[in-house]
Amino acid sequence: MSTALIVLAAGQGSRMNSDLPKVLHQVAGAPLLVHAMKSGAALAPERQVVVVGHGGAQVAEAARRWDDEIQIAEQTEQLGTAHAVAQARPALDGFTGDAIVLYGDTPFISPDTIEQMVQARSAHDVVILGFEAADPGRYGRLVMNGDKLERIVEFKDATEAERAITLCNSGVVCAKAEVLFDLIDRVGNDNASGEYYLTDIVGLAWDTGRSATAVTCAESETMGVNTRAQLAEAEAEFQSKMRAEMLDNGITMTAPETVFFAHDTIVGRDTIIEPNVVFGPEVTVESGATIRAFSHLEGCHVSRGAIIGPYARLRPGAEISEHAHIGNFVEVKNAMIGEGAKANHLTYIGDATIGKGTNIGAGTITCNYDGFFKHHTEIGENAFIGSSTMLVAPVRVGHGAMTGSGSVITTDVEDGALALGRAKQVNKPKMAFKLMDMLRAKKAAAKKETN
Amino acid sequence: MSTALIVLAAGQGSRMNSDLPKVLHQVAGAPLLVHAMKSGAALAPERQVVVVGHGGAQVAEAARRWDDEIQIAEQTEQLGTAHAVAQARPALDGFTGDAIVLYGDTPFISPDTIEQMVQARSAHDVVILGFEAADPGRYGRLVMNGDKLERIVEFKDATEAERAITLCNSGVVCAKAEVLFDLIDRVGNDNASGEYYLTDIVGLAWDTGRSATAVTCAESETMGVNTRAQLAEAEAEFQSKMRAEMLDNGITMTAPETVFFAHDTIVGRDTIIEPNVVFGPEVTVESGATIRAFSHLEGCHVSRGAIIGPYARLRPGAEISEHAHIGNFVEVKNAMIGEGAKANHLTYIGDATIGKGTNIGAGTITCNYDGFFKHHTEIGENAFIGSSTMLVAPVRVGHGAMTGSGSVITTDVEDGALALGRAKQVNKPKMAFKLMDMLRAKKAAAKKETN
Amino acid sequence: MSTALIVLAAGQGSRMNSDLPKVLHQVAGAPLLVHAMKSGAALAPERQVVVVGHGGAQVAEAARRWDDEIQIAEQTEQLGTAHAVAQARPALDGFTGDAIVLYGDTPFISPDTIEQMVQARSAHDVVILGFEAADPGRYGRLVMNGDKLERIVEFKDATEAERAITLCNSGVVCAKAEVLFDLIDRVGNDNASGEYYLTDIVGLAWDTGRSATAVTCAESETMGVNTRAQLAEAEAEFQSKMRAEMLDNGITMTAPETVFFAHDTIVGRDTIIEPNVVFGPEVTVESGATIRAFSHLEGCHVSRGAIIGPYARLRPGAEISEHAHIGNFVEVKNAMIGEGAKANHLTYIGDATIGKGTNIGAGTITCNYDGFFKHHTEIGENAFIGSSTMLVAPVRVGHGAMTGSGSVITTDVEDGALALGRAKQVNKPKMAFKLMDMLRAKKAAAKKETN
Repeated sequence: MSTALIVLAAGQGSRMNSDLPKVLHQVAGAPLLVHAMKSGAALAPERQVVVVGHGGAQVAEAARRWDDEIQIAEQTEQLGTAHAVAQARPALDGFTGDAIVLYGDTPFISPDTIEQMVQARSAHDVVILGFEAADPGRYGRLVMNGDKLERIVEFKDATEAERAITLCNSGVVCAKAEVLFDLIDRVGNDNASGEYYLTDIVGLAWDTGRSATAVTCAESETMGVNTRAQLAEAEAEFQSKMRAEMLDNGITMTAPETVFFAHDTIVGRDTIIEPNVVFGPEVTVESGATIRAFSHLEGCHVSRGAIIGPYARLRPGAEISEHAHIGNFVEVKNAMIGEGAKANHLTYIGDATIGKGTNIGAGTITCNYDGFFKHHTEIGENAFIGSSTMLVAPVRVGHGAMTGSGSVITTDVEDGALALGRAKQVNKPKMAFKLMDMLRAKKAAAKKETN
Repeated sequence: MSTALIVLAAGQGSRMNSDLPKVLHQVAGAPLLVHAMKSGAALAPERQVVVVGHGGAQVAEAARRWDDEIQIAEQTEQLGTAHAVAQARPALDGFTGDAIVLYGDTPFISPDTIEQMVQARSAHDVVILGFEAADPGRYGRLVMNGDKLERIVEFKDATEAERAITLCNSGVVCAKAEVLFDLIDRVGNDNASGEYYLTDIVGLAWDTGRSATAVTCAESETMGVNTRAQLAEAEAEFQSKMRAEMLDNGITMTAPETVFFAHDTIVGRDTIIEPNVVFGPEVTVESGATIRAFSHLEGCHVSRGAIIGPYARLRPGAEISEHAHIGNFVEVKNAMIGEGAKANHLTYIGDATIGKGTNIGAGTITCNYDGFFKHHTEIGENAFIGSSTMLVAPVRVGHGAMTGSGSVITTDVEDGALALGRAKQVNKPKMAFKLMDMLRAKKAAAKKETN
Repeated sequence: MSTALIVLAAGQGSRMNSDLPKVLHQVAGAPLLVHAMKSGAALAPERQVVVVGHGGAQVAEAARRWDDEIQIAEQTEQLGTAHAVAQARPALDGFTGDAIVLYGDTPFISPDTIEQMVQARSAHDVVILGFEAADPGRYGRLVMNGDKLERIVEFKDATEAERAITLCNSGVVCAKAEVLFDLIDRVGNDNASGEYYLTDIVGLAWDTGRSATAVTCAESETMGVNTRAQLAEAEAEFQSKMRAEMLDNGITMTAPETVFFAHDTIVGRDTIIEPNVVFGPEVTVESGATIRAFSHLEGCHVSRGAIIGPYARLRPGAEISEHAHIGNFVEVKNAMIGEGAKANHLTYIGDATIGKGTNIGAGTITCNYDGFFKHHTEIGENAFIGSSTMLVAPVRVGHGAMTGSGSVITTDVEDGALALGRAKQVNKPKMAFKLMDMLRAKKAAAKKETN
């Protein structure tokens, strides 16, 4: 059966106290919305519709950045969840499979859970996702009869017996698209807030001779985000799971609670991660690497046996080959660092290719930017770049070449050549003594004056 | 009614195991003493007296650094809290309002609580601050009769019924100054430790035809600091509250538990703070700024839309204008960074003014110190400072001017000029090959020798 | 009575999911094995035997690196704990004292506990270490009768009454060596897994007319490591204890939970440690030092009153004298920094001696490596090294000497001399305006082309 996702992302999220639409706030380096879409991605849905409202253009852009085949439906008035789903109808025109309704502010529904809902759909017309609540509070309750979901009762309308039920409504729904829209057409807004509620479709299903059931997931999957504090809790929940998975996969972390992963971080077995490491999106680390304390990685690849940090920053496009070393206070961006090459101290490597076995001295900088354009630096294999070499790109330093420390390299250096660009040292005897005496006297005079 | 604060700060704090007087240990970047004084500051007290003893000179200096109108009273012998308060009498000579007795090692009494005590004072002569203890243990108990505080009973003197009371004594007192001193004169020291206890004034109040009541606050407000572990707990308590407030105010923090605020940090709405950020005192950040991971800020101002870090250090006097970028391994001190200006890598900017739109290349350093004096660097708007430029202050680089990378700039550069200070590059063909061969041979010989 | 340690370290640790033998995984900068050996080190054991199996060569090497007098016994087949102990027999040939059996994956048995076991040994032939388990689960139970340990019963063989016992078996054993080996010879493998169990010696002791007793320790001491998650828990347990001890010893930590110590870190009273500091092995810090946020220290010594960081990295061999300052983005390796000397910004000091009172300017680098050899830099007292000075080692800068900023120093500078090595600054009027115009035009053209 083909599937379609409908992700509701129109809410303002006023409790976030933010100019940014709620679903664009991030957990683990991805907007909440993207997490919701990833939940359903394992189904390889035939269509995906995001229903936008507040901040619609921004939300649409973020959705399309994630997947440019996503369709956008606009909900211009906020008239309830059933009304929101109704806006997706044109986008599902001609679609005959199952539709799953997800929420852009509910990032952790697992792919397995959605898979189970789709399975359950084959025996029932409407499938609701429920969860066993530790503290059911004011959640809507799922009233089951065997595997049939008889109805969803709102807390305020529930009897004492119904309030004792702990299986609660998550709002996530799976139904054949045509059934979903038919039921939604029947939903009314004759209630206190005058809204069209998606949950009403359960009663309407039975009324129209259809059946409903519920699938149950862990309560943590249904965690929604309404405030910054909940956003931080969602981040903590994500990190906690991810860290446990990493440990299971054979990664050593001295202090897992100080390591922050992105939603898509991949780390190989027997890699060691020291305390206080932050991973931004799109990082892969192979086996047996070492990521030392206080390192920050984004959009990069670290090969086996490489040593990163402490205090290393790898930015997008950094490709660190096997057994290379990137040391303290070193930044690498859009650059390939060859096998066994080393840049150990106080260095900026941007827009560059560094050959294998090359040693980059402390304080070296690729001068890649002229204020308008970025230029490339190429350094060959087994080269030796002296400390504080300025490599004014575009420039090439050949294999086995050397640069003298403090040199500004503006023209290419052929293989095996030594390039120097430095003034001759001149020592002026006693001059430092004289200068210091002068300054000392000036300081004493200045002090006298202020007294 | 005018008010006066009496802050007791004479204790040695021997359990701190420190040479520093207890009240000078810091929480959130301010001495405990300052926290206590801030509690009462909202009353705009007419007088403030700090009673010092151990390390008196140091404590007095810290108090005056906080507010130079604070009066210091010395308690040369430690004869109890009533005796300590008595030392404040000369400083309150002629003062006719309410006096509030606070403790220099009790940092978290809220301004609201003190306000309530002052309100309660209008109906009673003596007001004691109590708290509902989760575990009352050996605290003194407040024996109430309606809104009257009948007496404070020490745990060791308490009956079983009194020990069942959970409302405990914080020691904080509010009374009309003349009443307070009159009662204190009557306090005796006929007890096991031979000390004069301030709590005795409650009984003495009733004995002398006056009345007493109690005001209740949260137990966390009365947290006292006696050991380094408690100091760390107080810090944790402070940070926990501050982080919750920041989240409520619309600040995003990926991992709030890794962000450390100072007592006076101000952050605007929709600012994002990544993990592992430390704020020292006197920092304000406007709305919509981004403070990236591993940044450290003290005494600085960050304007809206600015991006700081990762690994940026802003020191006192750093003023970062709108949309400016301060990047990794960059330190800024006593410097104005203009709108949209950028210093993205490995740079030290101290004692400088950087014009708007200017780009500071990697490795740039303002050489502001000659060993005796600090000098100023001025860079105009839309200038382009090449990588590893040394700006030997005092020096000015004009609007739209450029410096070549690796240049040492010792004299002013006029608007639109290009300044270069670098030696010509010379390439010596094959010389690197020869040098490496030589060194390789030397190394092989050295190895042979050691074997 | 002389003692010998037998440390069992042959297990594969397959649940670690690692190529590294389990006992070589680290807690607090030392392999688990070393922690186990340190537990027994206070006895000054006459002999130490490590029984190795999986990854035996690696384990043996790590053991000998810790103490080169350690003997290695090989267990080629994994036939149970009694069999493992039996392998130690040749190494204890002629030894007549008490043998203590420890486990290489159980790092936290305290020296006191082992001392108690040795004491208990004088009254009984076999001493077993037990612990009161909060949740005894499937641990073996110790069946006591007064101070006699009647037997150890495995959970699966235990009666209901025996299962109610909460005193559980840690596996740690102390017995006279000859008794131990005699009993082990009698252990059979007639059980479900066909292994020889060390615990069987208790029953055999009574059977052969000997006596057994148990000593009890805290459950946390018996924590074993079988997975990466447990390794992280062990680290957390260690850090938690170490932080509490540090606080007790009069160290201030703003956020103790963010400070990571090594197993051998020593810190003096009234030292302040800010958030996010990592200590590697072999660090001593004297009293009254300040270790600021984001600092990383390994193999170094920090003297009283020194200020380190923020963002300072001290590597092995860094010796920081009294009141010296090592500032942000500064790395020091194998170097002596004299009293009151300062290196405050963006500097690499490696293989150097810096005299007292000397000021090292921002961006200074000791060019200590030529690709084959490391060379030494010596700087005298009260010298002034200008910003971005390259010190090409071997080189000496004398007392009171100065170097101009941006200089490359390749030859010695005598006392009081000023060394300069920089090109003359040339300003080319209007050239920057022209260059920028040109680049701007090029950029506009490039944009046009892509449109």
